[in-house]
Amino acid sequence: MKITIDEVARRAGVSKATVSRVMNDSKPVKQEKYDRVMQVIEELGFIPNPVARGLAHQKTGLVGVVIPDITNPFFAELVKGIEEVVRDKNYNMVLCNTFHNFEKEMSYLKMLREKYVDGIIFMTAKVTHEHREFFRSSQLPVTFINRKCEDLNVSSIDIDNYQAAHDITTFFLKRGHRRVAIIRAPLTDKTSGYERFHGYRDAMQAYGIELNASLVMRSNFKIENTYRTVRRFLREEPAVTAIFATSDLMAIGAIKALQDEGIQVPHQVEVAGFDDIPMASYYHPSITTVRQPITEMGRTATKILIREINGEKVKNRNLILPYQLICRESTLTSKVSGE
Amino acid sequence: MKITIDEVARRAGVSKATVSRVMNDSKPVKQEKYDRVMQVIEELGFIPNPVARGLAHQKTGLVGVVIPDITNPFFAELVKGIEEVVRDKNYNMVLCNTFHNFEKEMSYLKMLREKYVDGIIFMTAKVTHEHREFFRSSQLPVTFINRKCEDLNVSSIDIDNYQAAHDITTFFLKRGHRRVAIIRAPLTDKTSGYERFHGYRDAMQAYGIELNASLVMRSNFKIENTYRTVRRFLREEPAVTAIFATSDLMAIGAIKALQDEGIQVPHQVEVAGFDDIPMASYYHPSITTVRQPITEMGRTATKILIREINGEKVKNRNLILPYQLICRESTLTSKVSGE
Repeated sequence: MKITIDEVARRAGVSKATVSRVMNDSKPVKQEKYDRVMQVIEELGFIPNPVARGLAHQKTGLVGVVIPDITNPFFAELVKGIEEVVRDKNYNMVLCNTFHNFEKEMSYLKMLREKYVDGIIFMTAKVTHEHREFFRSSQLPVTFINRKCEDLNVSSIDIDNYQAAHDITTFFLKRGHRRVAIIRAPLTDKTSGYERFHGYRDAMQAYGIELNASLVMRSNFKIENTYRTVRRFLREEPAVTAIFATSDLMAIGAIKALQDEGIQVPHQVEVAGFDDIPMASYYHPSITTVRQPITEMGRTATKILIREINGEKVKNRNLILPYQLICRESTLTSKVSGE
Repeated sequence: MKITIDEVARRAGVSKATVSRVMNDSKPVKQEKYDRVMQVIEELGFIPNPVARGLAHQKTGLVGVVIPDITNPFFAELVKGIEEVVRDKNYNMVLCNTFHNFEKEMSYLKMLREKYVDGIIFMTAKVTHEHREFFRSSQLPVTFINRKCEDLNVSSIDIDNYQAAHDITTFFLKRGHRRVAIIRAPLTDKTSGYERFHGYRDAMQAYGIELNASLVMRSNFKIENTYRTVRRFLREEPAVTAIFATSDLMAIGAIKALQDEGIQVPHQVEVAGFDDIPMASYYHPSITTVRQPITEMGRTATKILIREINGEKVKNRNLILPYQLICRESTLTSKVSGE
């Protein structure tokens, strides 16, 4: 027979509300009543049922995490950071991969709400009207990573993607490169696509170089897609001397494509990436990149979210974390000039 | 005011059990009662609460997934396969990373039980007495990946790790290599450690070569640790001509170490890995390896688990899936002789 909270209340001669208060330490209970309830709980071997507790509290101890693709090391490192904090705070993480599909995003958000998660960490390429409607009506605490959204009441963590892309393009330009190609993500992706591309464009313009469409490669964040794109590109634009790939996975696809076309990296073409995933250090050649504090972003986002779940008022809930340029073998110099 | 199932029952003039049957389609209900309940549900705008439903049913629609480390691409690909099926069946995945820590494993298992997951997909290096006790007492459906456990009532998915390691070692031996080194995982890890090492040892012995401890490198599954191990090794054993790394991440660490010591891969030393993670194709050089059907293993494990959650009797619940040797640039031949 399953022991219920009613049974505990009956035997202790108190109300259900009192048992609930004792179990959850939610409100003060007279010492005498407290002891009686605890005694009955022990006698019956009653284990409070957290699903039932969830009902009373409207808390499940679950945090929803919605990311595009766990097989992308950027997100894996991020999830690692999220996990560290979630675990430390005795939460569990419900992980959802949207594979960059908007319908999946919305259906996952709805599923998470139905599973009564206490809060959501959300990453998307684009915040749409439907997202806004959902977050406004759901009333759940939400933290965005890599996305700002001034018109929504959500916390957020990001770096300055525009400035970082500007810096790494300038790094090439200062060292004499003029034909600097970019591999960009879709511009609908506001930070990784739009902002990084505009940082590149403006850095080139600051050196008097107008945007040259033939130096702009478009790809997604997949190695294999970037590899094919760069091989096609190289047959038409062999005169390029530097490539700024807007993610490290794209940089890996680019270097592999260059090598398979018999072009030496960095001696004939220099390549830089973005993110600093662990493989950036161990690729051959190792990859010059913009280091995002990925695991730290996951940790910080989760700390803010859990504080908001607990009803705390969090100041500085929209953070821009610092990035860093890291020079490695895929560019010829190990110094960032002017930094 | 929150509408409860009691309120619905009272207004429809039926028992709570009847309301529950209507809501869950669990048992037949007379048409007249059914209609009355549905009418009240509509009038009240009653949305069945899935947490409450979970209480009645003992089902939460959550599957626990316990893996060592999501930043290892093997596990990321596996989780991708799990996700595909979980989503398709309207479940959600609670993801737990143990970072190869036994205490974390046990504490996560207990947390998952407390969060009332409907089943668990479990990966561990070693099935201990505590694991056995937990799985025997919890009565939850459980599927192991990469681990057999004949004495427990669990389903499992694996490949023949011993034979795959034997094959890849023989591939080196048939082509004239005699000083074949191995980078092995801890032997406490029964499949990836013990079985792969024994496949190597027995393949060497079949060629009359006794186990040479100085050709055995010990590492974990981390690139950086393997990189350091191989650099140390090369200063003492420069005469090695082939290295069998028992995972692709280890192979990447080994190739990077060889290159940093000025040793050409594959011309001076050949290297093979294990797993066939996506990076194995895109590393430079691309890596000869044993292809495990990783995503498929995740999908199949989840399908079996969900059938068992639904109370189905699953035949063939302990599967050994096929593997394949894939030759790439890290070995000089593109053919597997004798295959």
